[in-house]
This record gives sequence, structure tokens and C-alpha cells, in this order.
Amino acid sequence: MTRIAIYPGSFDPPTRGHEDLIRRSLALADRVVVAVATNSSKQPLFPVAERLALLRAAVGEEPRVTFESFDGLLVEFARRVGGSMVVRGLRAVSDFEYEFQMALMNRRLHSTLETVFLVPALDLTYLSSSLVREVARLGGDVSGLVHPAVAEALAKRYGR
Amino acid sequence: MTRIAIYPGSFDPPTRGHEDLIRRSLALADRVVVAVATNSSKQPLFPVAERLALLRAAVGEEPRVTFESFDGLLVEFARRVGGSMVVRGLRAVSDFEYEFQMALMNRRLHSTLETVFLVPALDLTYLSSSLVREVARLGGDVSGLVHPAVAEALAKRYGR
Amino acid sequence: MTRIAIYPGSFDPPTRGHEDLIRRSLALADRVVVAVATNSSKQPLFPVAERLALLRAAVGEEPRVTFESFDGLLVEFARRVGGSMVVRGLRAVSDFEYEFQMALMNRRLHSTLETVFLVPALDLTYLSSSLVREVARLGGDVSGLVHPAVAEALAKRYGR
Amino acid sequence: MTRIAIYPGSFDPPTRGHEDLIRRSLALADRVVVAVATNSSKQPLFPVAERLALLRAAVGEEPRVTFESFDGLLVEFARRVGGSMVVRGLRAVSDFEYEFQMALMNRRLHSTLETVFLVPALDLTYLSSSLVREVARLGGDVSGLVHPAVAEALAKRYGR
Amino acid sequence: MTRIAIYPGSFDPPTRGHEDLIRRSLALADRVVVAVATNSSKQPLFPVAERLALLRAAVGEEPRVTFESFDGLLVEFARRVGGSMVVRGLRAVSDFEYEFQMALMNRRLHSTLETVFLVPALDLTYLSSSLVREVARLGGDVSGLVHPAVAEALAKRYGR
Amino acid sequence: MTRIAIYPGSFDPPTRGHEDLIRRSLALADRVVVAVATNSSKQPLFPVAERLALLRAAVGEEPRVTFESFDGLLVEFARRVGGSMVVRGLRAVSDFEYEFQMALMNRRLHSTLETVFLVPALDLTYLSSSLVREVARLGGDVSGLVHPAVAEALAKRYGR
Repeated sequence: MTRIAIYPGSFDPPTRGHEDLIRRSLALADRVVVAVATNSSKQPLFPVAERLALLRAAVGEEPRVTFESFDGLLVEFARRVGGSMVVRGLRAVSDFEYEFQMALMNRRLHSTLETVFLVPALDLTYLSSSLVREVARLGGDVSGLVHPAVAEALAKRYGR
Repeated sequence: MTRIAIYPGSFDPPTRGHEDLIRRSLALADRVVVAVATNSSKQPLFPVAERLALLRAAVGEEPRVTFESFDGLLVEFARRVGGSMVVRGLRAVSDFEYEFQMALMNRRLHSTLETVFLVPALDLTYLSSSLVREVARLGGDVSGLVHPAVAEALAKRYGR
Repeated sequence: MTRIAIYPGSFDPPTRGHEDLIRRSLALADRVVVAVATNSSKQPLFPVAERLALLRAAVGEEPRVTFESFDGLLVEFARRVGGSMVVRGLRAVSDFEYEFQMALMNRRLHSTLETVFLVPALDLTYLSSSLVREVARLGGDVSGLVHPAVAEALAKRYGR
Repeated sequence: MTRIAIYPGSFDPPTRGHEDLIRRSLALADRVVVAVATNSSKQPLFPVAERLALLRAAVGEEPRVTFESFDGLLVEFARRVGGSMVVRGLRAVSDFEYEFQMALMNRRLHSTLETVFLVPALDLTYLSSSLVREVARLGGDVSGLVHPAVAEALAKRYGR
Repeated sequence: MTRIAIYPGSFDPPTRGHEDLIRRSLALADRVVVAVATNSSKQPLFPVAERLALLRAAVGEEPRVTFESFDGLLVEFARRVGGSMVVRGLRAVSDFEYEFQMALMNRRLHSTLETVFLVPALDLTYLSSSLVREVARLGGDVSGLVHPAVAEALAKRYGR
Repeated sequence: MTRIAIYPGSFDPPTRGHEDLIRRSLALADRVVVAVATNSSKQPLFPVAERLALLRAAVGEEPRVTFESFDGLLVEFARRVGGSMVVRGLRAVSDFEYEFQMALMNRRLHSTLETVFLVPALDLTYLSSSLVREVARLGGDVSGLVHPAVAEALAKRYGR
């Protein structure tokens, strides 16, 4: 049986924390599908196509990882690609509450889809896409927090 | 002395969790006033009149429960209807912090109005109106999470 | 129907926070039974009889409040005295988690016994029996934190 | 590559929550090693041999699950049995903090051992061995919370 | 060496809680720079100039406190004014998580800038600018929560 | 005015996290008094004299830091040495709740003694004396977590 893990998110933009989680997921599954959500109500900074391109650049050559976008329910996407688990990173208490709620709802909608929480690398625990956007918007240095391709895309976006 | 409990909220839409709390409130008070807030700054999915109608449909015949809308401060509404306690459900840590803050502010504005926290039925602890809206918007099955009248209203709203 | 609230605890010793909760409980119930647990595995500072006497001294003349000790399960005690709700104070997040767990277990053992959480007076939120014991043990001034009878009992206990 | 998951704990006694986690672990790994810690500083209710027997009775015939005891560091045990992940259930915020701390320490001691957190069945989230012991000690009904063999062992232990 | 503390925030409007923190900061530093952030993405209620004027009115004559606005990164502002510490008040768990994240990011951007957390006066722990705005908007009494000059500005803003 | 910070704790044993906090405290105060509590009810691993010696070895030559033991209330010790602030590290949510409670109690007992919370170095956030003791007891490698003198003392204590 091939174990397929789904790693869903907005990835707006991808951070070093996301890259770390993708690599950790490979220890749990034979294949990892990074799933970029397109249905968020929030206005994204980067369009889905660019987020997918940045993820590909950041993760590099890794035959067991694929990148897809999805709208609709995550559980439907998981059914479509044959995923048996959803991988999420845990950083903070507020994360935990929300993630717990989502995991329980997803279980209700798809009883055999297991949500699996991983701990990111310690020096990445405080990272988030929104914090990266905020630092970049104010002209701060985001190298080290994101892949160079992402840093470049942020610089272009904020006109530097 | 007639004990009157106020159960305030947005109820946008009412969920099975709200119904559960209303029934639990009846164990504490002689009358329960379900109070639909109209002054939220957020754009609601359902207008107040429809939320009141959905609440009535979901709760059904229960002579000790009435449904009202209010704008302005909750403490003023409580004074107007003679409420001596405010009932709130507790689900998660982030809930708890916000609810604690509101309870202390309301006590400052109305010192004898007691805020009372109840624990919802365990299988409803992960439910929230916003999660229900999100699942319905993405085409997920919300039966079991809401009363059939609410499920129908959501289906109509999201064009299914 | 007479509403009877149980307010269980160790009360080792009673604090101003406990007194505050007892008075708040009177707004919710016709009678309040303060229930001193005797079955704790921890070695108490004060024997049960003294804790009951200190509670009586601290609360004073209040015909709607009675004081009892119990061993065994709280839900059995509640059945015996006809209590329909358990009152608990909420102070902090760690409180909340434990209290939530107990409320759910008690509901499983006695489905119609409702656990009700109240917010203590703001200036008492940091109080606990163990903190009072610690301060008294180290010679700190606990007047204001406990009733004078309790302060005296603590002084005697710690040889001052 | 055979994926081996370690599910460590005290299991004093095993609960329905532990059984649930073992079954969920089987979705992530080819083999699950349930690892009973013997080095705790706390005095256990059941000796290790009995805890292992109760686990076997509770989980039943499942060729992919084995049961072992260990003392010393969990990471050394994981190395010995070839485990690549540690499975833990997440219930509450205080759980989360402690588990996070342990996961980071274990990663420091064994960098490729991944700690994986799963969400128990919702109706088991409030269960813990210590709560089960407490209810059994006070004569409460623990059937439904534990396997019949465990209920019987508890009844014997508490002399009923 | 002159110790300069930065106390950053939106101060929209300043509350009694902010005044309390400013006074506490004076115990830690020789000079306190109250830094009004202008770059928030949220639409403020009061323009920066008015927030600075309200802060000056609320704090009064205090030669060791100055008031400035800043856009861009806080760490750049700290470098510009020679600040060696950032002071923040801690109120609640959700506060704590966010503040922790910001402190770690700011340390990454400016390694010797220490973030220092203080506990506000107990009776102000539930206060926040957003709660004050909400109460004022709904016609509630905010005297006691803010300086009279702020109360007046709120009354004018909400047309009373 | 000389600013004196008290950094109280059990330091049983001192960790790299404690060393980090002592160094950070020097940015806030002219002198730091590391205060080893001797009145804890728990049986310590190392006697106070050894904990003081280990702290001195770990911190090294630093004329602005002194090491003292104290029993009784921290606030009395602070008065005796002229301390105007208490420094504490913040790691986790459960930490935060307890620390908040202690800070409020200490303020009640000594109104001008300010408690100041600092964020430890990120890679030390998961460290605690009890975790270090546990790892050492089980034969794990604690170098990197503690000063070599502490590692040696632990090895001697646990007979390796």
C-alpha cells in the first residue's frame, strides 16, 4: 500500500518552515502532495500559480513530492488523490486549538483520513507566512526565513 | 424571583451547539432569552430576521425560551429584559480568554449581571458558526451540525 | 423546583476567592451546598472539621448556604443532596483544561448534573489555597487574602 | 522499508483512549511497538507485567502490534527496535506544552526520530489513566472507559 | 549608559492600561520612548497625530517619557533612537503567543534588542483599545478605562 | 540609582537556559543577584551550597553578578538586597499562568517590585532543570544543555 500524505496550506509565500515540514512528511509517507488552497476568502499576496512555482523552487528535485492546487473541501481533495493522512505543523497554542477543531471536522467528513501533527525545526517555530509578509513589506531582511526565490519574489512585489 | 438568563450571540447561522446550550440554560434559569446581536461590524451571512426564524425553527416549541435581537451594549439589553445572568459556551482556550475579558468588562458595566459558562455536549465542542459556513460554502455536508431548516437556508444561500 | 448548587473543593484553607464564589452561586441557585472533599490523596494542612468551621466563620450567617464534607464521587454526593449543578471558579488556562476534563467526566457519570463556571472577582483571580499556604508558611501577610479566622488558624499552624 | 512506530506511555492502566491511538497508529506505520515505561519515579498502580497483559487483552489479536517494556531513554529504545517515529495523542493545552518539550528533547537526542501527534476519538479526549484510577478508586463505573479486563483488574485492586 | 526603553503600540486610543505600562517602564529604563505605529494595515479610529496628543494628555508632565510615531520595522526605529529594550504588557494566553513570536522575530532582526514583558495592574488586565472602542461605539461608559481626554475624543467621534 | 535585578529559582541544577537569562538580565540592570531558593518543599537533587558553586562555575567571572541563597519570601529577600525587579524566563503557556500568579502575589506583598519576563534563547526554550535531571538519570547526554561542571556533577550523582 502506498501511503500518501497531503500537506495543505496557503503557502503565501512558502517559508523555510514549510520546506522543513515537507521533508519531515517524507519520513511518514511514500508520497507527499503539497496542496495549495485557492478558496480562501482572504486576498492572497501571490497568485496560486506563483505559489506553486515558488514551492517547486524551494523544495527542489524530490520525486516523492508533488504540488497541486485545490478548491473545495480538503477531504474531497484527499479522496481524489488517495491521501490517507493530512500533515500539519504545530507551533503554538492558538495554532493547536484551531488545528484540533479542523482535524475533528475533517474526521467527521472523512472518517479514515488521519490528521498528523509534526513539530517543526525549533529555529523555525516562530515563522509564519504572514510574519514573513509583514517583515518584507516593512523592508526587513527575510533571507534565512525563506528560499532565495521567495525572497526575490517578495522584493519584487514590494518594489525594492 | 424569576431567574432570566440571556444567551447572546451572532447565531449566523445557529448550530446544534447553540441548541444544546439553550437547552442547558433552561436548567439554570426559569426563562432564557436568546439575544441575536445586530451591531457586529462584520457583514453577516443571514439577516437578523432570518437568524431569529432559524433559531425558532431549531429550538421548536419551548415556552420558557424567547428570541430577541438587540443592538447596543449587552448589559443594557440585560437590564431591559430583567436578565440576571449571561450564558456562554466554552470550547477552547482562545474562547476562554476572550470570554473572560468580556465577562469582566460586562461586570464592570453591570455589577450584578453574572456571566455563567457551560460546557457544550462533547460531540459539539468543535462546532462554530464560521466553521459551518465554511463547510457549507465548499459544498460539504452540514446535516448533523445544524437543524434541517438551517441546512436548507445554507444550501439556498450557496446556490445548491 | 428548588435549585441546589454544589460548590465542591478542598478549601484547605478557604480563601476570599472561595467566599466570593459562594456568594456568586447564590445568584444562580436557591440553595448552595459547599462540599469539602475528604478523599484527596494529598495530606491536607487542616483536618476536614476545621475546614468546615473556617468556612462557616468566613461565610457567616447565610441561611441558603450549608456546609458538608463528602468522600467518594462528587456525582454521588450531588445525587444524595439533590444538587442539579456544580459550581466552579475559573481562573487560568490550566484550571480550565482540568475543569473541562472533570466536567465531561462528571457529565458521563451523571448526565443531568450541569457544571457551571463563574468568574471570580478580578482582584481575587490570582488567589489559591496553595499560594495562601505558601505565603503563610514563609511568614507573609495573608490578611486580605483570607478571613481573619483563617489568618489566625494559619498563624497558629505555622507557629507565629 | 518497514515503518515502525513507537507508542510509549505508562498505561497504568490502559484506557479506551490508548486502544484508539494504537489503532490510529496502524494507519501510519507497518508495525506499532507499544512501549511501557518502567522507569517512572511515580509508584504505579499496576506492575509492568500486568500492564502488558492488560494491553494485550485490550488490543486483542493484531499481528502488526507488539508490546514491550523499556527503562532508560525512549530514544535508546527506539534505536534498539528500529523505530522511526514516536506516536503521541494530543488532548489538551497542557498536554501540548509538555509533549512539545519532550519532542524537542528527543529530537536533540535522536535527530531522525520524528514525533507524530494524533487526535484521539472525540468522545475519548477527556480520558486519562489517572482520571480512570480516580473514578475507580471512588467506586465509579469505568466500563466504557476501559476494556472489561481492565475494569476487572481495577475492581480487584480497589477491593470490590 | 542611558537605558532607553521603547514601548510600541497602536494606542488607538490609549487606555489606562497603556498609562500603567508606561509608568512601570520607567522603573526599568532611564528614558521611555512611546512609539505609535503608523504602518498598520488596519484603518485606525484616530489619526496618528491625535493618538500622540491623547498619549501626551494621558501621561502628563514626565520628562523621561517622549512620544514618537514610526513606520517601518520596530527594530529600525529602536536602532534610530538608541533603544536597548522593547516593553510589552502581557495579559492573556493569546497575547503571549503572538508576543513571543514577535519577540523572537525582532531578536533575529536585532540581536541585542531585548523584549521585556511586564504585568499590568490587575484591574486593567482585561482592558484593550479594541474593547474600549467597542464599548464607546455602543454608548457605554468608558470613564475609568481611559483618561478624560480620551473619553471626550471617543464621545466626539461617536457623536454623543 | 543602581538598578538591582533578582533572578530567583531552584537551579537544581543550573542549565544553559539559566545562564542565558542571567546574561540577558545584565542588559536591564546594573547588578544581578541570582537567588537560590532553599525553602522549597521538594527534596532537591543538589544541596544549596553545590547549586551555588555550580552557578558560579557556569556563569564565570562577571563582577556585576552575585549569587545568594534565601529562604522565606522572595519579596523580603528583594527588600534586603535592594532589588527593584524580579527577572523570570518565559517558556510555555503553563509557565506563563503560574508566573503571572506569582507576579501578582509578589506585587501585592511589595508594590514597587516589578516582575520582568524575558524570552530565553530559542534553542533553550525547551530546557528545564527537571528535564535535564530526567535525561541524566536515564543516562542521556546532557552536554550542550548544561555547563561541563554541571554535567560532571550529574554524572557523579547518577553514578557513571
